Amino acid sequence: MHDRVTTVDLNKTVDLNRTKAYRLLRRLASTPLDLASPKAFPRRRVLKLRSSGPSLTLLFATERITDEVLAALQQLADETRVVDQYAQMLRGARMNRIEGYKSENRPVLHSASRNVFADLACDHDGAQEHAVANTRKQLGKLQTFLGQLEAGAITNARGESFTDLVQVGIGGSDLGPRAVYLALRDHWRPGYRVHFISNVDPQDATQVLAGIDLSRTLINVVSKSGSTLETRTNEALVAAHFVRAGLDPSQHFLCVTGEGSPMDNPERYLRSFYMYDYIGGRFSATSMVGGVALGFGLGYEGFLEILRGARETDLNGLEREVRKNLALLSALIGIWNRNFLGCDSLAIIPYSQALDRFVAHLQQLDMESNGKRINRRGKELKYATGPIVWGEPGTNAQHAFFQLLHQSETIIPCEFIAFRQSQAGLDVEVEDTNSQEKLLANLLAQARALATGRMAGNPNKVFPGNRPSSILIADQLTPHTLGALLAYYENKVAFQGFIWNINSFDQEGVELGKALADRFIGHFAAKRRDPEYSGARTDRVGWAMLEAAGLM
Amino acid sequence: MHDRVTTVDLNKTVDLNRTKAYRLLRRLASTPLDLASPKAFPRRRVLKLRSSGPSLTLLFATERITDEVLAALQQLADETRVVDQYAQMLRGARMNRIEGYKSENRPVLHSASRNVFADLACDHDGAQEHAVANTRKQLGKLQTFLGQLEAGAITNARGESFTDLVQVGIGGSDLGPRAVYLALRDHWRPGYRVHFISNVDPQDATQVLAGIDLSRTLINVVSKSGSTLETRTNEALVAAHFVRAGLDPSQHFLCVTGEGSPMDNPERYLRSFYMYDYIGGRFSATSMVGGVALGFGLGYEGFLEILRGARETDLNGLEREVRKNLALLSALIGIWNRNFLGCDSLAIIPYSQALDRFVAHLQQLDMESNGKRINRRGKELKYATGPIVWGEPGTNAQHAFFQLLHQSETIIPCEFIAFRQSQAGLDVEVEDTNSQEKLLANLLAQARALATGRMAGNPNKVFPGNRPSSILIADQLTPHTLGALLAYYENKVAFQGFIWNINSFDQEGVELGKALADRFIGHFAAKRRDPEYSGARTDRVGWAMLEAAGLM
Repeated sequence: MHDRVTTVDLNKTVDLNRTKAYRLLRRLASTPLDLASPKAFPRRRVLKLRSSGPSLTLLFATERITDEVLAALQQLADETRVVDQYAQMLRGARMNRIEGYKSENRPVLHSASRNVFADLACDHDGAQEHAVANTRKQLGKLQTFLGQLEAGAITNARGESFTDLVQVGIGGSDLGPRAVYLALRDHWRPGYRVHFISNVDPQDATQVLAGIDLSRTLINVVSKSGSTLETRTNEALVAAHFVRAGLDPSQHFLCVTGEGSPMDNPERYLRSFYMYDYIGGRFSATSMVGGVALGFGLGYEGFLEILRGARETDLNGLEREVRKNLALLSALIGIWNRNFLGCDSLAIIPYSQALDRFVAHLQQLDMESNGKRINRRGKELKYATGPIVWGEPGTNAQHAFFQLLHQSETIIPCEFIAFRQSQAGLDVEVEDTNSQEKLLANLLAQARALATGRMAGNPNKVFPGNRPSSILIADQLTPHTLGALLAYYENKVAFQGFIWNINSFDQEGVELGKALADRFIGHFAAKRRDPEYSGARTDRVGWAMLEAAGLM
Repeated sequence: MHDRVTTVDLNKTVDLNRTKAYRLLRRLASTPLDLASPKAFPRRRVLKLRSSGPSLTLLFATERITDEVLAALQQLADETRVVDQYAQMLRGARMNRIEGYKSENRPVLHSASRNVFADLACDHDGAQEHAVANTRKQLGKLQTFLGQLEAGAITNARGESFTDLVQVGIGGSDLGPRAVYLALRDHWRPGYRVHFISNVDPQDATQVLAGIDLSRTLINVVSKSGSTLETRTNEALVAAHFVRAGLDPSQHFLCVTGEGSPMDNPERYLRSFYMYDYIGGRFSATSMVGGVALGFGLGYEGFLEILRGARETDLNGLEREVRKNLALLSALIGIWNRNFLGCDSLAIIPYSQALDRFVAHLQQLDMESNGKRINRRGKELKYATGPIVWGEPGTNAQHAFFQLLHQSETIIPCEFIAFRQSQAGLDVEVEDTNSQEKLLANLLAQARALATGRMAGNPNKVFPGNRPSSILIADQLTPHTLGALLAYYENKVAFQGFIWNINSFDQEGVELGKALADRFIGHFAAKRRDPEYSGARTDRVGWAMLEAAGLM
């Protein structure tokens, strides 16, 4: 399979609407399958439209997909050479760039952060040797550090072990690691707890610090640039707390940052770990950005299991056959729904309470990567890109917003995530079924109800149906499975970006807000220095906004 | 003001697209204000497009609104007699119905759950006397019960006080009370903690119960019908735990349910409180559904402050002038964005970490109420109704999905919520400003950046701008302010429902999923009784789904 990979000229990739498959798909989309029609949903379809990869199985009989559509999507994948592009990404090609303009111009090598298993090697690994070497070095440092903590070789000033770790970071330095940590509650090491502070709202740090004993707490400050406003501010705020408590921050603070960043100063930190500019924040959960906190909370072996699950899924991404490449299949179904059936949002509904913050991670991963409007050569696109991604766990979501999903005219494709077995030791039979069975029954019922709908004489009891969804299912939520899920969605997002011909790996859209925030911060600072200050002279509109809000 | 109210014939309300204002607004929407044009955003606009009500101020200069649009929206409000309809709702009219078809056919009187302040009486109160009497009775019961707990008159079997309360409920019995409790962390009574179990996923109960001492815990089971699958199951699961621990559930379990429901059985519960069929779940946070948990966690006076804030805002809803009626103003702006500018989602972004679950409540409130496709006489509508509502707190959200908000072609109106003062005692100055100032600076910067955008030579640094948003701001997040926020959004949703001519108060769209879930539950139960069972004979498609998912 892998040896047939050839090199794509990344400066000549085509826009989606210039492909032949696009015209074919447009034609197919003019008379798409109606899932609510009486014969649309036979038994054999349910069993056939199902694909399995490592750890995960995707059921997509409840998508508005036919064999013809599937063939056209395969053609789209072939024509855009999306698997070749993916292989090039793994080999370290500079995928993070805009041709002809100043851009980050970097390789995209988050895959290297889990490429450390001899039994999971592949042909492309040679080209990412330097990145894999970095991974091994950081993992070694982490293993040593965690071992020292366990052995009591590193303690607080009173010789006591550290029981708590607070990760201070925002965006990619927060959402992924937090979601993973919370999801794996049943795998937490007894005696070790992890917490997270992200928001510059001082309430966030106040709440977290209120519940812990600082003297036995490590603070892990995570910022690639070392200059993120929120993280810098929260680091100072937390450090002030330590000082007030008579504790020396440099004996409690760790950091994860880029080599050479303003934070890369070993004197300030008990230990420093590196992250690299070839890994974007939202793709960094399997790097040290997640590693330090997850290693502390789950143990080093637990973190390695996450990496193994992710690595297996990365290799699955090299399959050329859409039916065998799960992330690509999901990416293509997403494009079918977005660009051909015109749905501009995507609900991700895990039927798993443990994944209650996982959707927030996927929301960032997808929307920050693919919420773009220019192609890889800076030209405005004529078609939609990344959807709005949102969701809450089922069954809770059924009692919240499923009313709109079923009966509004707005069509919202759903991706359900589920596990055959519960993590919970505790379960109970009520009326002949246990809770896990009730949970899964609800999951299947929703996919079915959305697809088939129901006619009724009372118009308020009519369900139009024909609403697409898919189910991603695994045996159980473990570190291994969660690693697979992380990589599956990372790869899905990358595949979609390749097909949309966009750079999924930068985030220029956050820069204007930062620049304008600095101006408002300047007003606050100036007013503090000079009560007579009126920014109205230099920035009339900004000053008016402050006045209107009652802030000056 | 209030005495000019006249009665609307609710069987003759008109669809939005049949109003004169609709045609006018359509015309205005053909050349809407471009916020990114050089002169669109002058200082005087910023100061003028601002309205204040009790506790809250709405800044809407960054909406695509002009004086003409505002006048047309006022005309729409007048023509649909939306304030008269609201007044009728307060007076107990049967607003929850579909004319000509079987429907719930009930009054809508959540407003009565906070109508207990002599200094905040109004003309309409007479008509809801029975509901107000119910409120007083339940509040009295709650006050007595909380007093007995404090005085040690009610204790566990060992004579110890109760320190924890776990609310078991889902949807409206969970999201609102949970969001409010979490938001008011700084107002929690020392020594009392509240927890929530909602999901039928057994992981949810396992996690919550792991952290508490059952012997000192009250369980508050909340279900209006008394038959909600998740709640019934979790009640049994939790009770099994009590029994295993040698504790008598009837000495620890409370309930909030409808009079005459299967749960209305005083022998099973230490105390029972009533909820009424004239209050929908998603509108019930200020009823006993929220009252028991919030009274336990915040104290009775704290809960009363929430009610007072809500009541003041309910009275503001009677203002006929759009500029003075904050919830109506927001409702109309929402309709402008949804029906005339074509935006099908709404992001709600609180710049307040404490409100991190409040959006989940608003998501239910809005989407379950207004995700409808037929009017109040059962006719299919020709226009869009409730948007997709989603969001995460700022500044976190800036580092997650704001990339798409700023640079994608998909336009997403934003409602920002903010507070001038932090709740946190702890704050620190870093580079001449404190965290709260940085938080507010970011808020204003985002509204400004979304509106004005920025041109650039590098296409990847271009921000098209012209993206609408508004800011709802209050002094500080207190029980009083939170009561105002709850009622503001409840009233906004009701106003929009009146204008869309829909029944915002039922949720028939959840019924099909329930019915189909019962079928799948039946398969699981049958298989448990008879390993040879194959549902393929009775339900081929359902059985195939179970097989495809690897569940049989």
